[in-house]
Amino acid sequence: MTPRQTTPQQRQTEVGEHHGDKLTVPVSLVEAQLRDVLSAWGMPAEHSEITTRIMLATDLRGIDSHGIGLLPLYDELRMAGKLTMAPKVEVLRETPVTALLDAGGGLGHSPSERAMRLAIEKCRSSGLAAVAVRNSNHFGAAGIYALMAAEAGLIGLATSNVWNAAVVPTRGREPMFGTNPLAFAAPAGRNPPFCLDMATSTVAIGKLRLAWHDGRGLPDGWALDEQGLSTRDAAVALASRLLTPLGSRSELSSHKGYGLAAMVEVLSAMLSGGSFAVLRDPDADRMNVGHFFLALDPAAFRDRGAFEADMDAMIDRLRASRSVDPALPVLVPGDPEVAAEREREVAGIPISRKLAAMIRDVAERCGSRYLLETPAG
Amino acid sequence: MTPRQTTPQQRQTEVGEHHGDKLTVPVSLVEAQLRDVLSAWGMPAEHSEITTRIMLATDLRGIDSHGIGLLPLYDELRMAGKLTMAPKVEVLRETPVTALLDAGGGLGHSPSERAMRLAIEKCRSSGLAAVAVRNSNHFGAAGIYALMAAEAGLIGLATSNVWNAAVVPTRGREPMFGTNPLAFAAPAGRNPPFCLDMATSTVAIGKLRLAWHDGRGLPDGWALDEQGLSTRDAAVALASRLLTPLGSRSELSSHKGYGLAAMVEVLSAMLSGGSFAVLRDPDADRMNVGHFFLALDPAAFRDRGAFEADMDAMIDRLRASRSVDPALPVLVPGDPEVAAEREREVAGIPISRKLAAMIRDVAERCGSRYLLETPAG
Repeated sequence: MTPRQTTPQQRQTEVGEHHGDKLTVPVSLVEAQLRDVLSAWGMPAEHSEITTRIMLATDLRGIDSHGIGLLPLYDELRMAGKLTMAPKVEVLRETPVTALLDAGGGLGHSPSERAMRLAIEKCRSSGLAAVAVRNSNHFGAAGIYALMAAEAGLIGLATSNVWNAAVVPTRGREPMFGTNPLAFAAPAGRNPPFCLDMATSTVAIGKLRLAWHDGRGLPDGWALDEQGLSTRDAAVALASRLLTPLGSRSELSSHKGYGLAAMVEVLSAMLSGGSFAVLRDPDADRMNVGHFFLALDPAAFRDRGAFEADMDAMIDRLRASRSVDPALPVLVPGDPEVAAEREREVAGIPISRKLAAMIRDVAERCGSRYLLETPAG
Repeated sequence: MTPRQTTPQQRQTEVGEHHGDKLTVPVSLVEAQLRDVLSAWGMPAEHSEITTRIMLATDLRGIDSHGIGLLPLYDELRMAGKLTMAPKVEVLRETPVTALLDAGGGLGHSPSERAMRLAIEKCRSSGLAAVAVRNSNHFGAAGIYALMAAEAGLIGLATSNVWNAAVVPTRGREPMFGTNPLAFAAPAGRNPPFCLDMATSTVAIGKLRLAWHDGRGLPDGWALDEQGLSTRDAAVALASRLLTPLGSRSELSSHKGYGLAAMVEVLSAMLSGGSFAVLRDPDADRMNVGHFFLALDPAAFRDRGAFEADMDAMIDRLRASRSVDPALPVLVPGDPEVAAEREREVAGIPISRKLAAMIRDVAERCGSRYLLETPAG
C-alpha cells in the first residue's frame, strides 16, 4: 500500500522534515530566497517583507515544518488560484479593545502580524485586547505572533483554524478539524519568554511521512485507519490521513484534545466569520481561514516587575526539577526554539537537498533566482 | 503495598467517585444539606448562597468529583485552619476591562462567581474583559464559571491553579503542577452552549483510586511511579501520586499537556499573584490559589446571531459525524453534562453510601442537620 496522491491543501508541514543529506544555508541567503520568490509571485513589499521576516524567524527557531519548507505548498496554492498575492487587508470592525480584519484572501503572515500589532497597541492603552482575522490562509507558526506580545512585555495568545480537516473526534471516524494550533507566550525577567506553540492533534501529518520514509512503524495512538481504528502502519495512516486529537485515545482522555481543537475552531473561525473546513463549499475560490489574537498586560494586575519575577521563579524551578534521565533535562516551553535560534543565527539553516530541489523548481516556475546553493553546491 | 496516608490537600476529587451502593437524593435535600453545613461552618449568607448554588449545579451536571463530594475535603481544610469562613472579598485593582480580586482566603466559589460576573458586566460595556483572583482556594468545577459567560451570550474562559502539585513535566520525575483545569464555553442558538471543562492532566487522582477500589490495573500512561516511569499498578500510583500531563507520554506529545498546565499556572497564579505550589511556604496559613476569568462578546466581531448560527452548524455537524460504534455517537463538549442535568433535575442526585456517611460525619462535627437520608434510609 502506498500513500495516495495528496492535494496541495493536505501537504502542509510535510516538507522540510526529511532526514538525509542536508545543506546548511547562510541566514542571509534563506532570507534573500524567500524575498525573491514572494516578490516574483507578485506580493507587494508591504507584505513580502513581513512574510519573509516571519518565515525566516520560523526557520531560525528550528520549526522547519513552518518556514521556507512551506514555499512549495504555497506555490501549489498560488497556481491553483487559491491565493491573492496583493491582498487588500482591511479593518472591518474596531473598538478600543477589539478589531476584526479581513485578510483579503492572501497568505496569513502579514495580516496576522498586523492583527497582533494592533492587539498590542490596544492592549498598551487598555490592558487587554483581542483581534480576529477572517478570509486568510496559512499563517505559519502560531508561536511567532504570541511571541510578538511577549517581546512587548505582554501575554499573547494566537490560534488558527486550518482549511482541511484531519483530526477525528473521540469516538468518531470522520475528520472534523485541522491540526488547529494554539500558541501562548508570556514575558519573563532573566529568562527568554515562555512560549507554548502546539497543534491540538497528537502529531502532525509530517511525522507520519517521516516514519514512512524511514520504514518505521508508528507509535500506537498517532493515527487512524479508514475505520477510525488506531493504525501503526505509516502507509495506511498516510492513505487515510486521519489524526488523533491530543490524548490520542479515549482512555487517555483524547476528548480533551478534541475539545481543545474545537475551542480553537470557535475562536478562529466562528468568531471571525472564517469557514469551518467540513462545511466549506469545496469550490470556493478562497479558503477563508480564520485566526485569533489576544494580548493581556500583566501590569494591569501586578506591580511592575512582579509578574516577570514570578515567571523567572517558575521557569528556574521547572529547569531545576529532577528528570528521569539526567542527560535529558526538563525543558520549559520555548527552550528548544531558543536553542535552535542561537545555533542557527551563527551556523545557518539546515535544508534537505530534497527541499532545496523543490525550492529550485518553485524559483524556476516564477522566474526568481535560486540562491540556496552555490553553483558548485 | 497500600496507598499511603493522604493529606487534606491531596484528597481533591477523590470522593464521590466510588461505585457501589448509591442513594438517590432529591435535589432540594442536597441543596439544603449544602446550605446547612456551610452556614454551620460560619459562612455568611452572601457567600453560602452562591457556594450552595454552584456546588449543587455541579452535582446536577454530573460532575460528582466537584460538588457535594468535596464537603469532606473542605471540612478537613477548615479544621486545619486553612479556610477563612467569612472572607472579605476585595477588588484590589480595576480598569474598564480588567480587575484583580483578593478572595480573602475563603473557598473559591463565591469570589469566582463575583469575578466572572464582573468580567461579564465589563464585557457587556467593552466587548472584552479579564478578571484575576488571588488568595483563594478550590473553586469547584471551572465549567460553571465559563458557562456563566455563555448564558450571558458571551464566550467565557476560566482557569485555576491548584495548591498541591501532582502533574509531572515531560522527562521529569517531580510533580510541578496541579491538575490545573481550563474551561471554555460559547453560546449557540438552537443548541445548549459548547462547554469544554478539563483538567490538563490525563486523568485526576480520583480515577486512580476508583481503579484501586475495583482491583483493576491502570491504562499505561495515566500515572508514574517514584522513578517517574509509567505504572499500571493502582496501589503504586496512589503511593507516588504522580500524574501525567495530557498526552500521557513523550511519544504521544505529553509536552503539550505539560505546556497547557504551565499556561494555566501563568494565567491563574503568576498573573494574579497567587502562589506556585512547589515554591509556596508549606507553613503558610493560606493556599493562595489563583483563578483567571475572561469574557469576550461575539457581537464585537459578528453581526447579531451570526456567531450563534455558526456554532449551531458546527455542533450539528459534529453530532452527525460518523462514529466507530454506532451505539456511541460523537459528543460535543458539554453534552454529557447537559444529559446529566436533564436526568438529575427530575430523578435526584446519586450519592454513594460511603460519601453519605462522610457527609453525616461532616454534619455532626459542625452541628448541622444531616438531610441526605430519611430516618429509615
